[in-house]
Amino acid sequence: MATLDNRRPARRGRPGYDKESLLRVAVQVFNERGYDGTSMDDLSKKLGITKSAIYHHVASKDELLRMGVDHALDGLFAAAAEATAMPGRAIDKLERLVQASVEVLVERLPFVTLLLRVRGNTEVEQRALARRREFDRLVARLVSEAEADGDIRPDVDPGLVARLLFGMVNSLVEWYRPDGRTGAAELTEAVRKLAFDGLRPQPRASR
Amino acid sequence: MATLDNRRPARRGRPGYDKESLLRVAVQVFNERGYDGTSMDDLSKKLGITKSAIYHHVASKDELLRMGVDHALDGLFAAAAEATAMPGRAIDKLERLVQASVEVLVERLPFVTLLLRVRGNTEVEQRALARRREFDRLVARLVSEAEADGDIRPDVDPGLVARLLFGMVNSLVEWYRPDGRTGAAELTEAVRKLAFDGLRPQPRASR
Repeated sequence: MATLDNRRPARRGRPGYDKESLLRVAVQVFNERGYDGTSMDDLSKKLGITKSAIYHHVASKDELLRMGVDHALDGLFAAAAEATAMPGRAIDKLERLVQASVEVLVERLPFVTLLLRVRGNTEVEQRALARRREFDRLVARLVSEAEADGDIRPDVDPGLVARLLFGMVNSLVEWYRPDGRTGAAELTEAVRKLAFDGLRPQPRASR
Repeated sequence: MATLDNRRPARRGRPGYDKESLLRVAVQVFNERGYDGTSMDDLSKKLGITKSAIYHHVASKDELLRMGVDHALDGLFAAAAEATAMPGRAIDKLERLVQASVEVLVERLPFVTLLLRVRGNTEVEQRALARRREFDRLVARLVSEAEADGDIRPDVDPGLVARLLFGMVNSLVEWYRPDGRTGAAELTEAVRKLAFDGLRPQPRASR
């Protein structure tokens, strides 16, 4: 679903959707009104097509949610796979994972926004939460390895570091706008610097 | 409303509430079901008292929301007032503000959770968002001052630093539980270390 990352207009001149463009609009509506607060009628109105035209593409509202959160999760797990497959030290893999995750958040912002609001009310949501926990464990393992390597300060609990690190990363969905004045590259660099080197400008013995 | 921070049970043996214990339960229900999704009937059922008993204490659901978000905001602004009144450098004030904000989040967790979910649908919500923006500006000013003092690395935009810093702080509401294994003091220290000194353990020239 690479085309979901392109920023072409969601709605064409004439209503006519493929599964991907339909999903993009549905995710936008879910984020605006809440998933529970959105009916298939709402979607039909927003899309300008009949409900049966929607059902031509997807079996249910639930399927749209599943596709939406999976698009976010697949991006994050691809970033994790790439980072952990890198040769080198755990700290470098962790740094790459943080950067790649910011890139995924920026590219798939509405999808990650949807994912982070999931509370576990349905089976699809439970499954999304389980995948999120799997991702969190993967991050915590990398932090533990980096601490064992002596590359992360030993005086902070690895699980806590993992949560705070991705707390900062995930907070982007609250305020980041791709058309704003902060570019994706600047954002990625800022997160990396703040998390790994801290705010203070003191010289370091080595890097 | 200092008693709101105590962790005495919200519900007594017999239903009987003062304004504060009523507010505490209302905020809990708002967080569970969403403010828009909660009716005065829901509150009445949860509290085990009639709606008119609720109206004895508050004029409306809106008033409960206002009291709830104000309790969070008042705590954050008190932290800001204390931090900015400190003698010394902007970086130290900023560090104190981050620590004090974490303390407020821990003490007033349900109230801050409610605040951070506010989207601006009503006048009360708009006012809360305006106060949040005022707080954000105050943080950004401290970051700018610290950068002008040479105490923060000059290669990251101050507004971006302020957002990421409080993105990390605010992310606590997603996972922190006061009865969990991480104490408030450990949490405050972890946030301070991660934000100001970064993850890496390299020796520093000075502090």
